[in-house]
Amino acid sequence: MKNRNLIGNLRSQVGNYVNIAGWVDKLRDQKRMQFLILRDHTGYVQTTNFKDGKSLEGVVSSLSPDTTVFAGGNLVENQQVKLNGYEIQLDYVDVQSRPEGPLPITQGSNIDNRLDWRYIDLRDHKKHLIFRIQTTAEHAMREFWLQNGFTEIHSPKLVEGASESGAELFKLDYFGQEASLAQSPQFYKQMAMAAGFDRVFEIGPVFRANPSFTSRHDTEFTSIDMEISWIKSHEDVMELEENWINYFLSKVATKHGEEIKKIYGLETKVPKVPFPRVTMDEAYKILDSEGYQVPREQKGDLDPEGERRLAKYIKDNFDHDFVFVTEYPSKARPFYHMRFEDRPETTKSFDLIWKGLEVTTGAQREHRYNKLLNQIHEKGTDPNSIASYVNFFRYGCPPHGGLGFGLTRMLINLTGLNNVREVTFVYRRPNRLNP
Amino acid sequence: MKNRNLIGNLRSQVGNYVNIAGWVDKLRDQKRMQFLILRDHTGYVQTTNFKDGKSLEGVVSSLSPDTTVFAGGNLVENQQVKLNGYEIQLDYVDVQSRPEGPLPITQGSNIDNRLDWRYIDLRDHKKHLIFRIQTTAEHAMREFWLQNGFTEIHSPKLVEGASESGAELFKLDYFGQEASLAQSPQFYKQMAMAAGFDRVFEIGPVFRANPSFTSRHDTEFTSIDMEISWIKSHEDVMELEENWINYFLSKVATKHGEEIKKIYGLETKVPKVPFPRVTMDEAYKILDSEGYQVPREQKGDLDPEGERRLAKYIKDNFDHDFVFVTEYPSKARPFYHMRFEDRPETTKSFDLIWKGLEVTTGAQREHRYNKLLNQIHEKGTDPNSIASYVNFFRYGCPPHGGLGFGLTRMLINLTGLNNVREVTFVYRRPNRLNP
Repeated sequence: MKNRNLIGNLRSQVGNYVNIAGWVDKLRDQKRMQFLILRDHTGYVQTTNFKDGKSLEGVVSSLSPDTTVFAGGNLVENQQVKLNGYEIQLDYVDVQSRPEGPLPITQGSNIDNRLDWRYIDLRDHKKHLIFRIQTTAEHAMREFWLQNGFTEIHSPKLVEGASESGAELFKLDYFGQEASLAQSPQFYKQMAMAAGFDRVFEIGPVFRANPSFTSRHDTEFTSIDMEISWIKSHEDVMELEENWINYFLSKVATKHGEEIKKIYGLETKVPKVPFPRVTMDEAYKILDSEGYQVPREQKGDLDPEGERRLAKYIKDNFDHDFVFVTEYPSKARPFYHMRFEDRPETTKSFDLIWKGLEVTTGAQREHRYNKLLNQIHEKGTDPNSIASYVNFFRYGCPPHGGLGFGLTRMLINLTGLNNVREVTFVYRRPNRLNP
Repeated sequence: MKNRNLIGNLRSQVGNYVNIAGWVDKLRDQKRMQFLILRDHTGYVQTTNFKDGKSLEGVVSSLSPDTTVFAGGNLVENQQVKLNGYEIQLDYVDVQSRPEGPLPITQGSNIDNRLDWRYIDLRDHKKHLIFRIQTTAEHAMREFWLQNGFTEIHSPKLVEGASESGAELFKLDYFGQEASLAQSPQFYKQMAMAAGFDRVFEIGPVFRANPSFTSRHDTEFTSIDMEISWIKSHEDVMELEENWINYFLSKVATKHGEEIKKIYGLETKVPKVPFPRVTMDEAYKILDSEGYQVPREQKGDLDPEGERRLAKYIKDNFDHDFVFVTEYPSKARPFYHMRFEDRPETTKSFDLIWKGLEVTTGAQREHRYNKLLNQIHEKGTDPNSIASYVNFFRYGCPPHGGLGFGLTRMLINLTGLNNVREVTFVYRRPNRLNP
């Protein structure tokens, strides 16, 4: 619709004839006047029609909420209109589709009903905002990558055997052969390093056959991944990440900060660079001093409660929402994390914790074929089960490292919506393949 | 590596001490001098070392092609050096990894061997260029979308039943339920329209269990999709697409045009807007007049040879590389394409042909619940098999339309590499799940 006026931009059109497209929000069909509130994704506007017995009156009378229409008329100032102080004097309404009855859910319905009718649930401006934030953030991420010489890759999701660990794999028949769905692009972004691509990024789906039903788990989600060559240590990767986050959060703050504040009551803070860093040893000491014992089964990792308490300590002492925890023990990290030459029990790795939520795991990778083979054996993995990965390191590979970043966790932190189901466009868990 | 100089940028550093990182390309170990050519993703440079019996001499002697190194030294002008006219007088070489032997493939190896060792195959600058073009094109596409109010979505790839047709589906066990892999984001981008998202885009993987082995087929590829609301006809969608293509091709031409010309011998033409349009009836008449009969089994569609001949006709008569073919017969199009009210045998649809290759199918969609149900029945599909899709149209939906665009076909047209296997990062077909 070429001459369409977005409802959110009408203020500048007062005095003009305007054409809008949108949804019926409410109709008050009074004795002499019809008041019709229409909405599109940018706002609401009041439209009015004097009852004069002509055909438009009948059309307006027939409208029910969520009918879709094209409409037009003169946009006039009217201080009595609480909504915006202007209204459209209807000239025409062209109905495009009508709902078959009252909507099956309301914004107050329970989340499972809302997810069954996700497209109706998402008609709320507050929810569209989540995906407008997503759009702005991802675009800014890519701007940063392009400015820094990265190449975009699309790695295969259909893979042979396991992509990283044997657990939680979706398997399928691939022309008589067994295939599985990639749990991460880890192996392929490393392949790009061995291919001399220097720096790569990918935003794409990953799959985990995880039977959990928590507010943090899903079976399919969007992973944000990057990998860079010629690093000296994991510190280079952390420096990249903090600058990248600073860049895209400043874009989000500029574009949506005010609206996020209004709708979700949260400040969009642009974090200062560098972010605080603590080694895992220091993290344990801090938690000790705060009187918290990380459960033994964590084996040198942190548990979610430990992450929250550490984040609070950093916030209280350094006024920062982010903290890098570095130097995880080798026993808590996968075989491909590089270890210190003089301390093989410790990896050149890190997690990033943002407002108490782990949003990144990163590391320098082991790029030396023989060392990698040793680490694979030590973890009890059969190198033949990941033969095509192991091959990447046989004919020269740059030192490299990278990280993964969780899109939904970012959206949880930016909106305060504390459930992955609310911030995923179409959510998947074991009992949910619909819509 | 913070103080790294990219090899492609060395010209401006002549006279300075430089640090580079890269791959051994060639070594000439002569009596008095060692000449070592190093490369990174941006270029090649000659480095030299006087044989003086010190340790550096031994390090350089030990180097074989595709060893990865950090190296540094003074960059000096030397007109005798054919490569660039300058060289690095080596101060240090730090070996990062060594290949275990001669490379298993050369650039002349057959394609299946090259794909087995894809990461070595991709070390060729010519091949990295394919993915740098991809990066620039996709980023420009997204810039256009962002400038035009689009929201980015990530639709689920794990779906219940068929996503569009029952054929060529990969099926898998999903916690005891049958799931399949999405063949396109079609249904979900339409869901976003019913959700009031107004305009959306997605670049992501799609899956086709297609047993073919041709140079055009793959079982997993990257689909570029967009969908817009409040259109009056498919013409609005075509207008969007031609402006979008004009935008991103002009960015590709500016950034890579010269290099594409040099490496692939092709001009990157920015197409004039509007693109030529012919209806399917007109296309048949043109092909008739050119003496070509489209095979009967095409049922009103074009075959690849017909597309090539039509493209040639348009090129000869209108000097344009693109042509929209519009108004496909309903029998040749899926149930969700809208039909003309007064000509239900004809759809409001189009294909876009670029240099004889179909790169897009698009249409206005049928958004009216009852009409859609009729069309589903008429095609012999059971609406219950796509119940969650059909539901999207029950509670009000804007008129909308959209299109899909093939990433690999774009890369084929821009590089002249006439095989999808060459322009896909990691290729998949029935007998290839590796690497």
